[in-house]
Amino acid sequence: MENFTFYSPTYFDFGKETESHAGKLIKRFGGSKVLIHYGGGSVIRSGLLDRVKKSLEDESLAYVMLGGVQPNPRSGLVYEGIELCKKEGVDFILAVGGGSVIDSAKAIAIGTCYDGDFWDFYMGKPIEEAIPVGTVLTIAAAGSEGSPDSVITKEEGMLKRATSGNVLRPKFSILNPALTQTLPPYQTAAGITDIMAHLYERYLTNTKEVEVTDRLLEALLLTMIHEGPRVIADPDNYEARANIMWAGMVGHNNTCGVGRSQDWNSHTIEHELSALYDCAHGAGLAVTLPAVFRYVYKHDVMRFAKVASRVWGCQMDFDNPESTALAGITALETFLKSIGMPVRFDELGAKKEDIPTLVKNLCYGEGRDGKIQGFVTLYAEDCRKIYEMMAE
Amino acid sequence: MENFTFYSPTYFDFGKETESHAGKLIKRFGGSKVLIHYGGGSVIRSGLLDRVKKSLEDESLAYVMLGGVQPNPRSGLVYEGIELCKKEGVDFILAVGGGSVIDSAKAIAIGTCYDGDFWDFYMGKPIEEAIPVGTVLTIAAAGSEGSPDSVITKEEGMLKRATSGNVLRPKFSILNPALTQTLPPYQTAAGITDIMAHLYERYLTNTKEVEVTDRLLEALLLTMIHEGPRVIADPDNYEARANIMWAGMVGHNNTCGVGRSQDWNSHTIEHELSALYDCAHGAGLAVTLPAVFRYVYKHDVMRFAKVASRVWGCQMDFDNPESTALAGITALETFLKSIGMPVRFDELGAKKEDIPTLVKNLCYGEGRDGKIQGFVTLYAEDCRKIYEMMAE
Repeated sequence: MENFTFYSPTYFDFGKETESHAGKLIKRFGGSKVLIHYGGGSVIRSGLLDRVKKSLEDESLAYVMLGGVQPNPRSGLVYEGIELCKKEGVDFILAVGGGSVIDSAKAIAIGTCYDGDFWDFYMGKPIEEAIPVGTVLTIAAAGSEGSPDSVITKEEGMLKRATSGNVLRPKFSILNPALTQTLPPYQTAAGITDIMAHLYERYLTNTKEVEVTDRLLEALLLTMIHEGPRVIADPDNYEARANIMWAGMVGHNNTCGVGRSQDWNSHTIEHELSALYDCAHGAGLAVTLPAVFRYVYKHDVMRFAKVASRVWGCQMDFDNPESTALAGITALETFLKSIGMPVRFDELGAKKEDIPTLVKNLCYGEGRDGKIQGFVTLYAEDCRKIYEMMAE
Repeated sequence: MENFTFYSPTYFDFGKETESHAGKLIKRFGGSKVLIHYGGGSVIRSGLLDRVKKSLEDESLAYVMLGGVQPNPRSGLVYEGIELCKKEGVDFILAVGGGSVIDSAKAIAIGTCYDGDFWDFYMGKPIEEAIPVGTVLTIAAAGSEGSPDSVITKEEGMLKRATSGNVLRPKFSILNPALTQTLPPYQTAAGITDIMAHLYERYLTNTKEVEVTDRLLEALLLTMIHEGPRVIADPDNYEARANIMWAGMVGHNNTCGVGRSQDWNSHTIEHELSALYDCAHGAGLAVTLPAVFRYVYKHDVMRFAKVASRVWGCQMDFDNPESTALAGITALETFLKSIGMPVRFDELGAKKEDIPTLVKNLCYGEGRDGKIQGFVTLYAEDCRKIYEMMAE
């Protein structure tokens, strides 16, 4: 196991009707002037935003509002948010929404403490300061409610880039599984896929003898395999929603990823798809993961055989572990299809003729040097082949 | 899943030579005058205490020392520590040792902020304040390095009682698996048993459909089954030590126990054994767990069959799940014996004729009302039978 530090100081308030605690929690964590950041119509239609506002009013907290966060959140709104926070003296941001809203809130939180362009931090500048962020989560997917990460798309060139820093971990996150019951099945499934991708990205390691994190990651994958179909069959199943929601948080706050190298190539490859086609990140991952895995599995056949056997219940072929490894990838693909995810490139709106553009953005875009690094180092030629495998 | 809150703000610094960071971490978390709290000779002989002191000196931190913590830590030393901290104006306690040292440090931390008797909090008074505690862990066992708990034995009547509160979670914990390589095999095995008991106490729940925490607990049990024998066979196996150490922390900071009822009757029953006979808590648990499980398994046969099948690899007997449930308990007992733990009452130094005293302390001692409550409510008569099962 490699040396590591782990620090997850987020206060989680989990369960039914917990959104009514938002005001009290903001006060507890020192907020007095709040930006409520949110997306589109669903949080308004459901009455969630009103309930959250009431909770702040009950604590006599002042707030300003900024809605309009899109999936694959954009830098334009971030700049707007930073300006608003600076002008209004905001000292706490409450994100009411999913990963996109939370990531946008984190970007605003960094930018509000910085005189330069917030994008610098998405180009690799280390984060030192950010105003505190709290969240009311509305979809189990990105894990941003417990993670130190944020992903933003810059409109100019449609570049999707990530940053990370412990100061970006939310002060608190309110996780009410009931809020996710109204999600359309496609979004629910995309969330499930995103969570599973976070687990696979950590599972694909080059570090040896990391049984505890292997087992924890397998446990969360098994949970998703059990609960995913249950929630797709019955969107009102609170218990299934609750299990998925906690799995999504634990899977991405890195409890299960410490002390080991991780992959993240699939995420990086997918980011170009959702940046260019504005598809759901989870849907993009459903197409990306099997292609990447089939391209790289020979790098460590036994690792792929292990997840196949332990998670997917594939019989280990001791004479030919490669067949077990491949059976596990097929099982993943079949599962993702069964919950309603796309498995083909064109289902994302992607076009074969765009592959050169995708590869160019991926390997030679701003901040890149011709390759991406993870479980395996992938050069432009590798990435071209992987996008082509998706398009076949 | 039941509503819950989860807050684990401990900073974990994990890996080789991390004890040299103690001084920097104390500064980071606001300490200026430190009590270094420790146990007996091993931390002195190994040079660990000197390295830690040097780390504090490098940061120009003032400190006082208090050693002599015994296994099953006593209230006498806690009173001494409180007096010392008050007199010296200590604002940070660094525990260098295992669970006993950390629990003693936590008790001193509460008492230093309180004018009354610290024991009040072990009798149920809610904890509001404590001075910050940091730890340098020397054995993977109690999980106190990440937990909000502390267990202290009061000499008068040899009462062993627990308290809990988020302010008792350490500010930081330094986890260097190499420090555990010099432990005698018996202590290593007792630690493994304690960790497994923490997982079982959470596994035995009456809450339905808690797949995510079930799976996480199973993952950690599977880790212990894999790593336990490896570390007993080769005490210098750093990787096995590392996996066990992280499993011990994750297993007890409650990531895997949220939103579900838990048991803890085995711990409560064992506490009377280690209080009366001063045996290792883990050794006491090795004798206690199988007896308690055989007494209560009929309360939920399928739960015991589940852990038997998923963790111990017992074939599920679909015609007779009870036989699978029992096979899992036998597998646990066989495993504990294989790593060198006692399985009989008399191996702990316990005597059959003491059973009435044990039951009296357990069910009618200070703060008790004739029963203990967990997975199943156990009355004095039940507890008598369980102790007798151990003695058979």
